[in-house]
Amino acid sequence: MTRIRHLVSVDDLSIPEILEVFERAKHFGENLRSFAHLCPGRIAASLFYEPSTRTRLSFESAMQRLGGGVLTAAEMKTSSAAKGESLADTVRVVSGAYADLIVLRHPSEGAARLAAQFSSVPVINAGDGSHEHPTQTLCDLYTLWLEKGELEGLEVVLVGDLRYSRTIHSFAFALARFGANIVCVPARGLEMPDYVLRRLREEYGAEPVRADASSLRDLAPESDAVYLTPSKPHQLSLFTDGSAAKVEHVDAVYMTRPQTERHGVGDSIESYVRLGNAQMSAAPLRDAIVMHPLPRRDEIADEFDDDPRSLYFKQAARGVPIRMAILGLLLGQIELDARPPEVDERLVRIEIGANPCPNPNCVTHTEKRHSRLGFRLMSRDPLRAACGYCSHEIPIALVGSSKTRHFHSRDSAVARKIRPDELIFFRDEAEAVALGFSASGA
Amino acid sequence: MTRIRHLVSVDDLSIPEILEVFERAKHFGENLRSFAHLCPGRIAASLFYEPSTRTRLSFESAMQRLGGGVLTAAEMKTSSAAKGESLADTVRVVSGAYADLIVLRHPSEGAARLAAQFSSVPVINAGDGSHEHPTQTLCDLYTLWLEKGELEGLEVVLVGDLRYSRTIHSFAFALARFGANIVCVPARGLEMPDYVLRRLREEYGAEPVRADASSLRDLAPESDAVYLTPSKPHQLSLFTDGSAAKVEHVDAVYMTRPQTERHGVGDSIESYVRLGNAQMSAAPLRDAIVMHPLPRRDEIADEFDDDPRSLYFKQAARGVPIRMAILGLLLGQIELDARPPEVDERLVRIEIGANPCPNPNCVTHTEKRHSRLGFRLMSRDPLRAACGYCSHEIPIALVGSSKTRHFHSRDSAVARKIRPDELIFFRDEAEAVALGFSASGA
Amino acid sequence: MTRIRHLVSVDDLSIPEILEVFERAKHFGENLRSFAHLCPGRIAASLFYEPSTRTRLSFESAMQRLGGGVLTAAEMKTSSAAKGESLADTVRVVSGAYADLIVLRHPSEGAARLAAQFSSVPVINAGDGSHEHPTQTLCDLYTLWLEKGELEGLEVVLVGDLRYSRTIHSFAFALARFGANIVCVPARGLEMPDYVLRRLREEYGAEPVRADASSLRDLAPESDAVYLTPSKPHQLSLFTDGSAAKVEHVDAVYMTRPQTERHGVGDSIESYVRLGNAQMSAAPLRDAIVMHPLPRRDEIADEFDDDPRSLYFKQAARGVPIRMAILGLLLGQIELDARPPEVDERLVRIEIGANPCPNPNCVTHTEKRHSRLGFRLMSRDPLRAACGYCSHEIPIALVGSSKTRHFHSRDSAVARKIRPDELIFFRDEAEAVALGFSASGA
Repeated sequence: MTRIRHLVSVDDLSIPEILEVFERAKHFGENLRSFAHLCPGRIAASLFYEPSTRTRLSFESAMQRLGGGVLTAAEMKTSSAAKGESLADTVRVVSGAYADLIVLRHPSEGAARLAAQFSSVPVINAGDGSHEHPTQTLCDLYTLWLEKGELEGLEVVLVGDLRYSRTIHSFAFALARFGANIVCVPARGLEMPDYVLRRLREEYGAEPVRADASSLRDLAPESDAVYLTPSKPHQLSLFTDGSAAKVEHVDAVYMTRPQTERHGVGDSIESYVRLGNAQMSAAPLRDAIVMHPLPRRDEIADEFDDDPRSLYFKQAARGVPIRMAILGLLLGQIELDARPPEVDERLVRIEIGANPCPNPNCVTHTEKRHSRLGFRLMSRDPLRAACGYCSHEIPIALVGSSKTRHFHSRDSAVARKIRPDELIFFRDEAEAVALGFSASGA
Repeated sequence: MTRIRHLVSVDDLSIPEILEVFERAKHFGENLRSFAHLCPGRIAASLFYEPSTRTRLSFESAMQRLGGGVLTAAEMKTSSAAKGESLADTVRVVSGAYADLIVLRHPSEGAARLAAQFSSVPVINAGDGSHEHPTQTLCDLYTLWLEKGELEGLEVVLVGDLRYSRTIHSFAFALARFGANIVCVPARGLEMPDYVLRRLREEYGAEPVRADASSLRDLAPESDAVYLTPSKPHQLSLFTDGSAAKVEHVDAVYMTRPQTERHGVGDSIESYVRLGNAQMSAAPLRDAIVMHPLPRRDEIADEFDDDPRSLYFKQAARGVPIRMAILGLLLGQIELDARPPEVDERLVRIEIGANPCPNPNCVTHTEKRHSRLGFRLMSRDPLRAACGYCSHEIPIALVGSSKTRHFHSRDSAVARKIRPDELIFFRDEAEAVALGFSASGA
Repeated sequence: MTRIRHLVSVDDLSIPEILEVFERAKHFGENLRSFAHLCPGRIAASLFYEPSTRTRLSFESAMQRLGGGVLTAAEMKTSSAAKGESLADTVRVVSGAYADLIVLRHPSEGAARLAAQFSSVPVINAGDGSHEHPTQTLCDLYTLWLEKGELEGLEVVLVGDLRYSRTIHSFAFALARFGANIVCVPARGLEMPDYVLRRLREEYGAEPVRADASSLRDLAPESDAVYLTPSKPHQLSLFTDGSAAKVEHVDAVYMTRPQTERHGVGDSIESYVRLGNAQMSAAPLRDAIVMHPLPRRDEIADEFDDDPRSLYFKQAARGVPIRMAILGLLLGQIELDARPPEVDERLVRIEIGANPCPNPNCVTHTEKRHSRLGFRLMSRDPLRAACGYCSHEIPIALVGSSKTRHFHSRDSAVARKIRPDELIFFRDEAEAVALGFSASGA
């Protein structure tokens, strides 16, 4: 039996695979009703622990357009979960014989990763809290690719709530991975968070530089933009003269609604940009398509709906062919020439001590009876690790070796040489001692 | 590309089309399971903004019996709408690639008309507040046609809550359109409203006369009936001798439940008719079938369920073949010989001023961010207009011309000559002046 | 037309039929995706008056794997029922043309029996309150049959809440019917109720004897077990030496969660067994499979999930092929060689007096406008009768004859000779007199 493939994160697909998925989606999109021969007899179960009608209908449409069947559980929170069943148990039951694939929406971050570990059929992450929603990101990328013909080197302006929008963060990582340039035009107080900027730089080589966005006029009234560009010599050289990077030609504007439900007390959205005909009249925006993950409230004026650059409804529609391609791929009905990513998916088990993940919304905290804990090493120097489920960085003060039973400071040379499967993280010395470790050399 | 056909109102179908739809439904009803070849690969989305399990299941059964697929959103109110998305946006997304047809249930009157304007696929109105529910009306007519062989000249008694029942009003309009005679036997205080009677007379030529319903005995204990008959000379002559029309032979009795949720404080339902074996024993009712849109409470006694004249469960069952015919027609899989109605569907845009529709449940008031307003001219003399969405009459005091910028009294000769697309309605002079209009000749 | 078959109770299938159903299920389970040719064009409606996502998905998966369609009403309580419609009316409408089979979940006991009376298509009971859930029981039996090759003579230990668990009671009856031996190891205070033990003895010949469960060690710490064995001479002789029966080899352990929602104030679950590796280490349990109807909370430790004897997830998965076989059978797409049970399904109508059923959750009490009452005679001497819907025993003080209009004491010779269809039950003399009956011979 071949390994079951899941789609928990966009990174579960290699770049050549994604481009091939786009070609398939394009083919599907040309006549949505011609592919019912691909998955007859296959059943996808929509397990939605929070409502998201749009996402659910998009998946269910895609599955039916492939000739497959659908099981719908749109209100998991009020049924199985209410009876105290763990996600792991539910997934084992549903993947046992009910369904050939699971589409999971869950409010806990890392839930889809956990589900994938317990499932005997492919799991697609249809949103796990603020963490990931890979088919949304693929749909966004696909729209850009379809309209512009390529992704590398494009100039994409991100506008609005760059702080709390999961969609924006995932999209930015994906843009950087494909070598697109990003201009951040946040609403006041809703700037891109540091940890996102750091990951963009460390993992994708996207270097932030101060940008001059005055050419965007009303779309960027405060001109306080950040320009992120893939760190390739010939491109970086453009901005190394000390002056701010100038935004001269924009391929796409990506708007988001203010994520008011996540805003803190102090956050203001009074200054939130409203995109309309006036805002889109600046010269560099002449050929810029306007994208939005929807639903919108009033951050894009109705008047702009008839503008040929308004792409948000087409973008939503393209979720269907993209999801058809993903479903067909994971169900083994579509074969790609490209090779999957060579990611080491194994998490390092956290063997002793309390759950070190600092994220209260992490599935390792929210799921009752969950006993699996694991981390990924992000770097050895400095020693940094992330929760294997929700991707939050784990704060490490001291590290120990399960073999020597000694503990060391995080930045010591010894610490960096401990084998991953022998690593233990401690918040402080008291915890280390309580767990029976002693100071190195003591 | 041919124009997309919607079913927002029964009037969207011509009389010959309706009769042809009945023939198709009859054919479908003879073997519901033989038509799965008609719509394979097509998907209908049920967007229900208020629950109506019976209606939803009937549509979804019909679609599946045609071999098509179904997307179900039975709880739209708690999902997309809760995120503040407008109906127009939802419809544009769902009609983009998700579904090939939309079945819409919405509490706002006129919602289906609005949805049809924004949809790129056919929209079927499955109930928009108290406004219309055309497939219910077609199902009622179809039952009558199937049982009696024709519609013209039938005698149909409407019993119960004739005041608040949308079903009764729509059915009465349809009966009048097909030339059936209507006898109104309302519960006390729940008489047919004046605006319904006026529309029956003005649009369908159904003249009300006082009727003697004493022959119906217990079914019409107060004998305070109204007889509406198509105003054709040979029929009207029957009742021009000054005496009340006598009810001598009834083809069908249509019962409704009291719409208690809409009753005012003063409304009493103590005197509400309860139909049972005794009430149905009067001589003119010997061949009368008994219909009811269901659900019933106790206005029809269980004891009558075994009577061969009780047709209400068959009537409900016939909703499936009727909806199969409608779905097949709108999806282009059934072609009719009859021609569609030559209705001018264009609404006149209301260009300036506030929304003049007086109906607070009209979708033009209830939908956030809705900007389209429009009306239909009902008559030029007197000048009368109805909201283009919910069909409520718009109160007009003064009218203006957007060309001359003058205003006039509604009944003036000048007002009647203003071109529809230049017409402006004002509630009073103050509003007209505030909007920059001046008195005619001033 | 042949009689419509329903599955309201496991007893609606004969023992040879059940074994043949198991053979079919085994065949289906070998390749779930090869049977889509069996029910194309057929539609099953899930009418769920209380949520049960697992059961619903299992049925809907089975129906789709047979190539059929599904109508889902997962929230009947908030829709049709909220409009005051009776279950009988809903069933008549849905069975009219919407669906070819109804899967019903309802909180009232006896609801499925009532539904079957009014339905024109097969009804499957997917749980009616605390009464029955026959496909769950069949799934449990099937798992045992598949793992052990037969049912007769197996030793099955029932552990946990034996008092309130419907699943346990139904499973015990079915085990007894198939000649398996049952060992009851209840949590403290949650012993098998007397009426269940009586029915096991009277209807299925399962004799309870005191058992020595000390060999089960930690699984039965209090060793206060009851052994129920089919009353066949050669088996009973094993335990007639006055000593307690010894549990020496166990084929299956069936765990249940504490039904805390039904527990009384005094019930304690502190002593509730938690099954883990330690509990399963006793010698007689070496080959025992562990079953659980799921969802579990923590009565089975996660650590045991990897043990090859843990069968609960496979048991859940096997609900799909079992339901495929049941659906195919009731839809007439599978024919069995075995003959159906020769049960007299006719209830004796209760013609006068108040509803004598003492169960407040019985559908004859909870369904508005329900007028059918009926009973089954359980025995003539002593005269005992059960509600024809919920199976609760009807308390009888006096009995009358509708022919003689006399009443008699329940235990009199006259009472035992009254024909069932002339029997009247009275709670006391006052009721009898009030209904116009006189004392015998008075």
